[in-house]
Amino acid sequence: MNDATRTDQGALPMPDLRGSFPGPFPASPYADDIERHAAGWLRTFPLVGSERRSGALANITGHGMARTFPTAGRDDLFLCADLFLWLTAFDDAHGEATGARDPARLVRAVGECVQVVAGHGEPPESPSVFATALGDLLARFRVRAAPAPYLRLTAHLRDTLFGIVWEAHHLGAPDRVTLSDYRAMRPHTVFVRTLMATGEIVLGYELTESERSLEPVRELEGAVADLAGWINDLASYAKETADDGQAPLSLPVLLGRQHDGDLEEAFRAASRMCEERAATAAARIAELTARGGPLAAHAGALGSVASSYVWHIRHSRYRT
Amino acid sequence: MNDATRTDQGALPMPDLRGSFPGPFPASPYADDIERHAAGWLRTFPLVGSERRSGALANITGHGMARTFPTAGRDDLFLCADLFLWLTAFDDAHGEATGARDPARLVRAVGECVQVVAGHGEPPESPSVFATALGDLLARFRVRAAPAPYLRLTAHLRDTLFGIVWEAHHLGAPDRVTLSDYRAMRPHTVFVRTLMATGEIVLGYELTESERSLEPVRELEGAVADLAGWINDLASYAKETADDGQAPLSLPVLLGRQHDGDLEEAFRAASRMCEERAATAAARIAELTARGGPLAAHAGALGSVASSYVWHIRHSRYRT
Repeated sequence: MNDATRTDQGALPMPDLRGSFPGPFPASPYADDIERHAAGWLRTFPLVGSERRSGALANITGHGMARTFPTAGRDDLFLCADLFLWLTAFDDAHGEATGARDPARLVRAVGECVQVVAGHGEPPESPSVFATALGDLLARFRVRAAPAPYLRLTAHLRDTLFGIVWEAHHLGAPDRVTLSDYRAMRPHTVFVRTLMATGEIVLGYELTESERSLEPVRELEGAVADLAGWINDLASYAKETADDGQAPLSLPVLLGRQHDGDLEEAFRAASRMCEERAATAAARIAELTARGGPLAAHAGALGSVASSYVWHIRHSRYRT
Repeated sequence: MNDATRTDQGALPMPDLRGSFPGPFPASPYADDIERHAAGWLRTFPLVGSERRSGALANITGHGMARTFPTAGRDDLFLCADLFLWLTAFDDAHGEATGARDPARLVRAVGECVQVVAGHGEPPESPSVFATALGDLLARFRVRAAPAPYLRLTAHLRDTLFGIVWEAHHLGAPDRVTLSDYRAMRPHTVFVRTLMATGEIVLGYELTESERSLEPVRELEGAVADLAGWINDLASYAKETADDGQAPLSLPVLLGRQHDGDLEEAFRAASRMCEERAATAAARIAELTARGGPLAAHAGALGSVASSYVWHIRHSRYRT
């Protein structure tokens, strides 16, 4: 396990997040249990084609989730880990380049999931393993969560599914994507809003609507949402370029347009943006922690969610 | 205004719903007010290209909404009417054949709306009139609705937006759509679940989670959801075929595959299915009405929602 806040990826500049998220990040004592559970869940619901990839995914999810919610209970960590596994495996199986090659097929796969999430009437006829696994997950969340947090979680899940569709339609046409559109969509495709929504469920706090709309809360959420997607973009750039043979739809690629395609300059600009968002997040976490109660709990949850993404980017999944 | 429960469309068989939804359907005294308001809202937010079409849409929405929630207050009816206008205009502008011609463009238009619905961070840069109008609508619903009903409404709205994307990807390929998939998606594209969700908000009742999961409640909702889409399919078939020059993705077209493409036989089968769903809805409405309280309120709301769709199909919008 690497608790590191700095990545090294050839000569390209990377953000230095040690000031805002110094680490080492606390980890739940259940990390190995989560990994074992995750591997078992992937045997029950074979969402991943190869055993080697299943094992790697269970490993990163186990140790990542242990950092996402270090104080959560064991079963709650299992539940969040399974959700994260599901999202990652669905995106790998149907999203990105696969989705771009046959968007209608992706839309049908998402449609089946929307049917499960909506939960009206009959389940899908001859459900895919993704639909069956999602049904298992949602039944467990429904037992665990009060109605409003459950609705909030499933709203984010819908946005993630749509984000995967959005991304697949634009992978080959980054020139049609504005930076503003990208900023709006990227948090969904990196699953961070969905993960934040699980925090309220498994850590047992709930913000009131007026707390939720406080400016520091919204700013913290926005900063963590941006940070998660952008550092993932920087860390996974080399891997994604190698996998697909084409530049991914990502922050440095979009910024490159403003720098005459100078990748190093784009990485430098993106790194500065990451560092700024990390600083904003850290400042808001301090401010909200001082207020105590559910606001402090939320600040703590978002801090550890952010930390888990910072931790993630050093994992071998992103090595070429 | 036509309070009719039987349509006549050339020689094709149509459902006889007089037994289940006999009409005439009660209408709010505010019908003309809603029409005037709707016309004004469409001047503030020009979602529809031509004045003639704006006028026709304001008319059908005014008188349709007066039948959807005949006992609702004036401002609440304005709010629901604006939502229905928005959905109809968005689908006309971006969905169906237009969306099928350029799916990525549709996905971008939906992406902007998802950004508004999610409501994180900044609003879209240079928003379209659809995004601005949606922002206006959601701000008004947010004031009007408690958190859970608001979340439920926006969940259905997301499903409708996705349904429009799903439909656009399959318009030209009905052979890739199973009847089961179609049954799951069609309620979203006819907006009926979204409309049902507004009922709890504007009529001032809320089901508990255990009431919501009662079998007669789910069965009633499912029957009304099917009925709304299917009778719309039958009534709009001629218009849609004339508009696009190709058979629409609709129940009779999908059933036609089981009848060697015999359209009349497919219409007859579809009509029987509509009559069965209408009978189920009517039976569940009677059963839940007898139980009083929120269940009776819900039964009443769903009965009038169903009635408004039955009323709609005779409106001139669906004449060729």
